[in-house]
This record gives sequence, C-alpha cells and structure tokens, in this order.
Amino acid sequence: MASHPLAPAWLAVPDDANELAPAIWSSNVRRNDSGVLTIAGVTATEIAATFGTPVYVLDEADVRSRAAHVLAAFSREFSAIGAKAKVYYAGKAFLSTEVARWVTEAGLNIDICSPGELAVALAAGVDASRLGHHGNNKSLAEIDRSVAAGMGAIVIDSLQEIPRVAEAATRHGRRQAVRLRVNSGVHAHTHDFLATAHEDQKFGLPLEHAADAVATIRSYDSLEFLGLHCHIGSQIFGADGFAESAARLLTVHRELLADGPVPELNLGGGFGIAYTTADDPDSLDDLASAIAGIVAAECTRLDIPVPNVAFEPGRAIIGPAAFTLYEVGTTKDVELNTDEGTASRLYVSVDGGMSDNARPALYGADYSVRIASRTSDAEPALIRLAGKHCESGDIVVSDDYLPGDVAPGDLVAVPATGAYCWSLASNYNYLGRPPVVAVRDGVARVIVRGETEADLLARDAGLDAR
Amino acid sequence: MASHPLAPAWLAVPDDANELAPAIWSSNVRRNDSGVLTIAGVTATEIAATFGTPVYVLDEADVRSRAAHVLAAFSREFSAIGAKAKVYYAGKAFLSTEVARWVTEAGLNIDICSPGELAVALAAGVDASRLGHHGNNKSLAEIDRSVAAGMGAIVIDSLQEIPRVAEAATRHGRRQAVRLRVNSGVHAHTHDFLATAHEDQKFGLPLEHAADAVATIRSYDSLEFLGLHCHIGSQIFGADGFAESAARLLTVHRELLADGPVPELNLGGGFGIAYTTADDPDSLDDLASAIAGIVAAECTRLDIPVPNVAFEPGRAIIGPAAFTLYEVGTTKDVELNTDEGTASRLYVSVDGGMSDNARPALYGADYSVRIASRTSDAEPALIRLAGKHCESGDIVVSDDYLPGDVAPGDLVAVPATGAYCWSLASNYNYLGRPPVVAVRDGVARVIVRGETEADLLARDAGLDAR
Repeated sequence: MASHPLAPAWLAVPDDANELAPAIWSSNVRRNDSGVLTIAGVTATEIAATFGTPVYVLDEADVRSRAAHVLAAFSREFSAIGAKAKVYYAGKAFLSTEVARWVTEAGLNIDICSPGELAVALAAGVDASRLGHHGNNKSLAEIDRSVAAGMGAIVIDSLQEIPRVAEAATRHGRRQAVRLRVNSGVHAHTHDFLATAHEDQKFGLPLEHAADAVATIRSYDSLEFLGLHCHIGSQIFGADGFAESAARLLTVHRELLADGPVPELNLGGGFGIAYTTADDPDSLDDLASAIAGIVAAECTRLDIPVPNVAFEPGRAIIGPAAFTLYEVGTTKDVELNTDEGTASRLYVSVDGGMSDNARPALYGADYSVRIASRTSDAEPALIRLAGKHCESGDIVVSDDYLPGDVAPGDLVAVPATGAYCWSLASNYNYLGRPPVVAVRDGVARVIVRGETEADLLARDAGLDAR
Repeated sequence: MASHPLAPAWLAVPDDANELAPAIWSSNVRRNDSGVLTIAGVTATEIAATFGTPVYVLDEADVRSRAAHVLAAFSREFSAIGAKAKVYYAGKAFLSTEVARWVTEAGLNIDICSPGELAVALAAGVDASRLGHHGNNKSLAEIDRSVAAGMGAIVIDSLQEIPRVAEAATRHGRRQAVRLRVNSGVHAHTHDFLATAHEDQKFGLPLEHAADAVATIRSYDSLEFLGLHCHIGSQIFGADGFAESAARLLTVHRELLADGPVPELNLGGGFGIAYTTADDPDSLDDLASAIAGIVAAECTRLDIPVPNVAFEPGRAIIGPAAFTLYEVGTTKDVELNTDEGTASRLYVSVDGGMSDNARPALYGADYSVRIASRTSDAEPALIRLAGKHCESGDIVVSDDYLPGDVAPGDLVAVPATGAYCWSLASNYNYLGRPPVVAVRDGVARVIVRGETEADLLARDAGLDAR
C-alpha cells in the first residue's frame, strides 16, 4: 500500500494494524484467541471493566526483569575490566512504594530529587543508604532531612550547596558521601550528540571548575567525595555521546586523584526506548559493552585505575513496561487538501489525554496505538488519537494506523507510557488522574489509586465558606 | 545600556529592574515605602511567611473588575447595534468555587468542559442554567449528568453527539439548548491569523457540514438550537481574526435562518494578555468595538438581524490577576561564548518550576520576574529563572533582567500566572501543588489549599501492603 499523504515519512502503512510489535510492548502483552489484548494473562476488557478507563497498566514482571537486566549488563561489562557498577533507578520517571520495592529487590538503588520522592522511598522501606539525592535547588530543610535520614549520596549541584550539605552533616554527626555534578559539554539526544565547551543550563558546574569545587568539598571533614557526576541528555539511542562525555570526565577524574581518592564515576542516565516501530535504540547490553570499552580504553590511556561506575536509568526500566488503556468516545473523518489530492485523517477521541500523558504536548513525543478489545480486518486508516481536553493541542498519538472501523466503545491501548506519564500528570480540566494497575501472573491490582471527584474538590477552601 | 548578547531581541535592558509595569501586574500590586511588593495592601513577605512559597497570589478585586469590565464592554458595543452580549468565563483557565462566585456575581456565565468542572460550579452555588458545556468527547454519563443538572447550553462537537444529547434530554424530560461547534477555517494567534478552507483539528465540524447537522438537531423535539459556535485560537491580540471568522460564520448563520430561529452566535474566546512588556494586546474595549462593527456590517450586507452574541474569555479575566511568589535558593553565573565575546547569564533557581507553571515548557511561553521582598540599585543582570525540577527544560522565565545582587533568600514574583498555571499544575518530582491565596482589602486567605506530603502519598496503595 502506498504511504498516506498526511502521514509522516517514518510511519509505514502496516500489513496488519492489529500487530503488537514486541519492541514497544511489555514482554507479557499479547493477544488471546479472541483477539483481545492481554497482559500477564489478564484481558484489557477485564481491566477496563474492573478499574475503568483511562488506566495505566503496568507489567510487574517486566519492570523487575528490566531492572535486573540493566544491573546485570553493567555489572558484567565493568566486572570484566575490574570495576563494579551501581545502578540507580531514576525515581522521577515513575515512583510509588510498590515500584520502589520491585527495583530495590532487583538490586538497584534509587535516585530521588525532592522531599516527596524521599518520603515515598522511605515509606517503601528502602534503606536511605541506597538512595541518591539530586537537584539544582535543594532547600535547606530538604538537605537536612536527607542527611538525617542517612542519604547514600548527595549530588552537589552548585558551589553554594557545598557548605549547606557540610553543615547539615556536621549537625547530624555524619560524614555525608557526595558527588559533584559537572557539565561535560556533551548534549545527547536519540541519534546525535553535540559537544561544546560551555553549557547554558541550570544544572552543575563547568568541568574546569571541578578541581576547585572538589578541593572545597575535601576541606570539610563532614563530606566524603565519591566522584564526578554528569548527565548528558535523554532518550539516547547509542553510546557515542556517553563515550565522549566519559573521556572528558576521566581527564578531570585523573587530576582529582592527585589530591585524594575518587572511588566512583557517575555517568548518569538517558538510555532511550522505542515509542514507535521507527525507534531503534541500541540494547542495554550493547550500550553497557560500548561504555565499558571506552572507560577501559581511556583509563589505560590516562594510566589510572578503572573507577567503579554508576548509572541512572529510569525510562529504560519503567517506560516500556506500561500501556495506557482508553475508551473511544467519538470519531471524525477530516478531509484535507494535499499536494496529492484530497486525503482524510480519522480523529479518534478517547477519555483521557494531555492530563495523563503530557509528553506529546511537552516534547512533541510520538506514541503508537492499537485497538485492545478486538482485532479487525478493516483496511488500516491513518488516525490521530485525541484526548478529551478543551485544547486543540491535546493529542495522544499524532500519527498511527488503526483498523478503519475503529468506533466508539472500542478500547485502545497506547504502549510505552510507563515513564513520565503518571509522574507528569495534571488535573487539567478537573480530570482525575487515572489509577495505576499492576498485573502479574494473572492478577491485576491497584498500586496507585485513581482520583475521584471528591479528591479533586478536597482542597477547595471555598466549599467551607458555604 | 547596550542590549545583552544573550538576550532575545524583544527584551530591552530596563532603566529600573525593580519597576512593576502596570500592563503585566494586577491593578492592586505596587511597592510600599520599603520597596516590598504589596497586593491589595498585603506585603509579599507577609504572604510568604504565612502561606509559604511557592504560592499563587490572586487579586480578588482585580478578577471581579476584569470580569465586570469585559461584560460591560461587549454589552455596550452590541447594545448599540441592537443585540445582547453574554460572556462565559472559560473555567479551564482557572476554576475554584470562590472564583466561580466572583465571576457569576459580576454577571458572567461559566463554561465547563468536564464533570469535575461542572461539580465545582455547582458546588459554588452557580445555577446550571448559567453554564455552557464544551468538549470533543463528552462521555454518555457526562452528558446525562449535564442535562439532568439543567445545563444552560451544550456545545455539540460532532454528529455522533447529537443523538446522545437528544436522548439524554428526552430521558430527563427537558428541551436542551445546544450550540453547534464549527470550524470557520480561521486560526488566530497573537498578531496573525491564517484562514484555510479545512481544518486539521479535533474540535467541531467543517462549516459546510453545518446545515446538515443543524437540520439533524432541529429534527429532535428535545433539542433547541441556539446557534453556531466557533473558537479561533488563543492569546489573540487584535480583532482581524475574529472579523474574518465572524464574516464566514454569519454567511452560514443566514442560511440557517431559512429553516428556523438562530437566536445567538458564539464567537468563542482567545483574547490575549501581556506576559511581558513586549506584549501589546488590544484592549477589550477596542476588541469589543471592532468585533461589533464587523458583525453589524456583515449583518447589514447579508440583510439579517444582528444576533445576540456570546464570548468565552478566560485568560483575559484571570490571567493578569495573579502572580506566583517563589523564594530563591541558588544562583549561578554561566559564562558563554558569543559572536560579541564572552557573556554571562545568571541562573536564579526557585522553589517551584514546571510543576506549578507548565506553560514555558508546553508552549515556549515567556514570562517576566521581579524581586518582591526588596528593591535594589544593583546593575540589572540578564537572568534565567529556573525551577527546582530534575529536568533541564524546567525554566520559569527564560529571559529577564533583575538587579544583579539577587541572592538566595530573596522572594521573587512572576506576574500574569492566573490562567493555565494552577489548572495545568502537576506533582512532577512529587512536589505538592502550591496554595492559591486570594487577597482583597488587606486580607489574604487561602481559596485552594496547597498539597502536603500526606496528600502526595495518599493514593499510594502500596502503603497498605506494609
């Protein structure tokens, strides 16, 4: 079939618009004999009937397995060059007490970046020694609480923060382990990276200021310097940006070794995932192998021991493990003039939208969609999945193909919504945030409750005035 | 002073970086003799001490006055041409029970677009007959509830919705007033508008389908057709787009008169406000006058009576009436190479960010900022106001000048945050949404409570598992 004049170049007309491409669905998703989408043995129709729509549906075994896999991959590759690897799950992608338990049971640590995320991790029973604390503007109270809790490592982001953390550590009689966030000048995204001398961004210090900052850190008995930290971007598909950044960091790391120990190097996160079949990120095994190779080569060149490393994936663990299930409410064909004549786009409107997935509006992010409640032999139609918000930019999936008979009442599922969907969700238009349902071994259970209308009005102080 | 090499072209170096430009601050904001920013007689320092930061601060008298003003302007101009004007406050901009009361006491109706917004309006004591119901995908339950409540007008958005509303009306023994949302092909934003034959958007029907859809509406005894509705865009500074849209709509309006009454025409909202001193929207008086002039001229040309009109401003009423008050936590000078040599940008990080104001990240929206807790004679510095979220795109004010001695502990205020800030707020990084404080005649009171850490964890079902 020829491509559609309104479709983007990357989007091919599918042979079968019912197919669930393994790269973009969690490992326990498939269709049953009736064509209904199932996850870990539970059908989408049962989930919708039990929990309503929209609903985030999380594949528990998939999360646990991805968490274990990333730790195993980095541990294997760095063990081969005589070093250890730590993996911090980036809680900002999605955090609840259940997920905190799953990833720590898989051997991971957790990165937090606010008092609220700290509270969730502690409420999950995670020992504070397994946490890392990020942020360009941690409040004094936040630092104090973090130190008091026994925070594993605080990532210092500015010169101003050094005495703040040192004083909190002294106050609590602790020697606080800290990293120093620097900018390597490398910015990576998907297939490209850009390397500059200076970075115009709110996080971290320029690399050339690191030596002075580390000297300041080392001047405090209450601080223990672990090493440099750098985060180069997000949704990165290859190792080149990490390689360039690691090379730049290790040069400074070597200088720092002259005046004291530098046991670790934290290379951050940003490992990409596939949101559509056009996305082709390198596997975490390949990334781990490539990054370990670069680190080994650079350390040999610099004649220094290979430091232990830390990584901070979030999206790569939780992103592919969930889909969002919606119900279709209205459909509308729009006829448009194109260079190749008139063409039509089918708008399919669902019962959620930019409140439960802000990424398309925020980042122009692409997603894909399938009918979950049935299969259909109808000819594929180019669709745009729209939300129900009172805003024309409220689009969940800008471009995909669905069977052309998609209709009100159909359930549709949007895969790869585990990261940065619930965590960025709003109550725009007073829509309650959907529940998060975890499914494992045929059992579906709520791990985060959805919001009710009572929840939405609960903070309205004007109700008291009546 | 020469412009800064890193500053955008529209941003002039201010003579006084303490000045509160009247166009972007609510009418009861000024500085007291000590230089502290005050609103309706209450100082920013008192507000921060009492309610904490960040906090949305709303000028109650300003909201009431803008609401009354817009109604008076449209009523005056349309009365002069023999018609009436209704004004619906667009609740999506910001809605709470207090604000619902203020705008209805000023004589306005309210637009809602979800069951949650309906619940807020009803909880405020607003009679449902004063409400309009929008949405491209109203659920069956939502339509039923709306009709049962006595909804003033439902804006029908698709052919599929006509029988749904008709059946609900029959079920409740009501004759439901409805409008029909159409696309005039006009898209307006700020200084420009674009007029096309067809629209690639989720809302409404093409204008050429209106006659058939209205015939269907009129075929139901349970529906009463009020007229056409069209919304052409947002943040519109002039009347040209409204004029073109009104002319197109009135041509169809005239056709519809052949088969029955068409008492009203709803021209939607989208009236722009000033976020920075570079913004220069036409006054609502001028817009009302220009739009009434066009409607009168077109009706004369078409030889039809001038219909009653309706408008739906949200931002224009609530947007300029609030500022967000933050505390500075860290500052950082970044040196960058430019064509004109090295230049520096001062990053000023505050205790909120994209969770309380998503518009810069969502729309690239510009805001401005002033120190609220003091004035300073220090030379103005080009600053970037960053939030505290773990994301490099978390910027509140991309470019403005502040006194160069801005420092941790200073309170800063970002004006014009009344619309689409609280309503789009998230809990990203588990930051609680700030309270909304209304100030009037020297009294500050919470109208929407802020979120506590207990609120943030309240829906975590994993807590029960321990």
